[in-house]
Amino acid sequence: MTGCSEPTRHLVWPTASGASPSHPVETRFAAGAAYVDGQFCPIDEARIPLLDWGFLRSDACQETISVWEGAFFRLQDHLERFQRSIGRLRMTSPEPPDHIRSIVHELVVLPGFKNAYVQIIMTRGRPPIGSRDIRLCRNRFQAFAMPYMWVATPDVQARGMSLHISARMRVPPQSVDPMVKHYHWLDFQMALFDAYDAGAETVVLLDVDGHVAEGPGFNIFADIGGRLVTPRHGVLDGMTRRTAFELCRDLGIEAADGQLEPGQLRGANEVFLTTTAGGIIPVTTIDGCKVADGMPGPKTVCLHSEYWKRRTAGWYAEPVAYRQKP
Amino acid sequence: MTGCSEPTRHLVWPTASGASPSHPVETRFAAGAAYVDGQFCPIDEARIPLLDWGFLRSDACQETISVWEGAFFRLQDHLERFQRSIGRLRMTSPEPPDHIRSIVHELVVLPGFKNAYVQIIMTRGRPPIGSRDIRLCRNRFQAFAMPYMWVATPDVQARGMSLHISARMRVPPQSVDPMVKHYHWLDFQMALFDAYDAGAETVVLLDVDGHVAEGPGFNIFADIGGRLVTPRHGVLDGMTRRTAFELCRDLGIEAADGQLEPGQLRGANEVFLTTTAGGIIPVTTIDGCKVADGMPGPKTVCLHSEYWKRRTAGWYAEPVAYRQKP
Repeated sequence: MTGCSEPTRHLVWPTASGASPSHPVETRFAAGAAYVDGQFCPIDEARIPLLDWGFLRSDACQETISVWEGAFFRLQDHLERFQRSIGRLRMTSPEPPDHIRSIVHELVVLPGFKNAYVQIIMTRGRPPIGSRDIRLCRNRFQAFAMPYMWVATPDVQARGMSLHISARMRVPPQSVDPMVKHYHWLDFQMALFDAYDAGAETVVLLDVDGHVAEGPGFNIFADIGGRLVTPRHGVLDGMTRRTAFELCRDLGIEAADGQLEPGQLRGANEVFLTTTAGGIIPVTTIDGCKVADGMPGPKTVCLHSEYWKRRTAGWYAEPVAYRQKP
Repeated sequence: MTGCSEPTRHLVWPTASGASPSHPVETRFAAGAAYVDGQFCPIDEARIPLLDWGFLRSDACQETISVWEGAFFRLQDHLERFQRSIGRLRMTSPEPPDHIRSIVHELVVLPGFKNAYVQIIMTRGRPPIGSRDIRLCRNRFQAFAMPYMWVATPDVQARGMSLHISARMRVPPQSVDPMVKHYHWLDFQMALFDAYDAGAETVVLLDVDGHVAEGPGFNIFADIGGRLVTPRHGVLDGMTRRTAFELCRDLGIEAADGQLEPGQLRGANEVFLTTTAGGIIPVTTIDGCKVADGMPGPKTVCLHSEYWKRRTAGWYAEPVAYRQKP
């Protein structure tokens, strides 16, 4: 392995002093901000119509974008993937792409977050009263920003997460297009209950053929015989998954997508998750058994370190357009 | 075939004079009523929190109940299935079952509907700020009533619907429990677009093994060699499906659940859909080809007639508790 200078097996997060809000923040936005019906509002007041098919038929797509040290990560990529999802669902956005970018900035500016978790959402809307014709729906855009959220806190990441491999099948690509970031999560939700029952902190599901697929909000990578593998089919084209591949390329770590069997995962040299809600997250226990020596693996630590180092240094960063002090 | 006295191939709906609202109705409820956050409101004002996992993770279950001529149909059965769904999703209702019954009545009383489409919904809610633990969510109950809605209008039913058989896979039972009436409908929604593109009015999806499964809001029955067959596995235990079996038994029409192949469906003697949003609905065209002679089939007409005759006569009926004129 080349390119990785990390000498320890311990995770570190660089401290940094990126852009920061210097404008006064209204307290009503302290918990977060939302954008609904063309207006900004405090996150706790944000509501969508009960009859929106985005809810009643889970006919919606979304992007989740992170802000770290005052900068968005891969905002342009997220906005492009959002447009792709909208197209694949045959929706028409009421907001042009450039306006979505401004909204996203304003959502972080209003609460004055330095680190944030931002979601943009397109819903089908509803057809006129009396009709059930999907083609007549007026699609709706909404979004929100809340404080940065971790799939696992830094403390948990430092020791690595415990994972359960579920026998449950991830909603397959033959049913719902995995290239669209959607809300069909009941499989994940019930599998999370199973994981908690089994004493684990998170869960990964299998695909229609019994191969490892993905978990709630993350892709999974495993070192199998010295090479990182992540499932190729039937999973989200995750932004942090893409990022991990780029880091591997730059660091000279061999990585590819392919097939990953549950047995291979259990016997892997190391395992980690990739997610917008945390970056590169080590898994050190699978169904009660240690992964290798039970410590975050060397490639995981290396990728984790590089991920945060680069983010703090402004990699793929778009600074939040905080307003200056008047 | 015994027990069916219907001499024609034409669908008829009996007219009736069931219970009727005699109290004054507030105009703000004219379009429908909803129950959210423990309060009744006009349906157009009904909203759910943007952060409810019922939306953001489609972690929800529902029942849709019809009211015809001033009476609920199988309300007790729906309430029991709702409790079963809640249990299977490991939710806890904030409203006791008896209170849900009162709410459902009031939702129809407020707008003064004689014929209505009522939905009761349990959502996961959300965990406390900062947590992602599903076990800490406070589950939420909401409901609404709108005017009775048809999968196909009586005019369309009279000539029979045109159906498209999609190659898309219905979200499989290995992913999401089909005994729970859930909102994972993106497969249906995109298949509806395909159907419209193909010039059809609705669509049926296949199961994981390529057998016929179900469509958006309905189960499907076909007469194959003189016997009605409806898919056994991976489909909703539909209330009108149950009802159709009971009617068949009483009318001496042979019917069973089993496997139904797309080829069998295309070559069937007759085909119909069962749905709370319309009852027994004939299908007379599949992918542009006539089903048999292209008229609603004799068993379909018989079941349709018996269904509406019995409903009008008060079968499984619970009269709406309209308030009397003051």
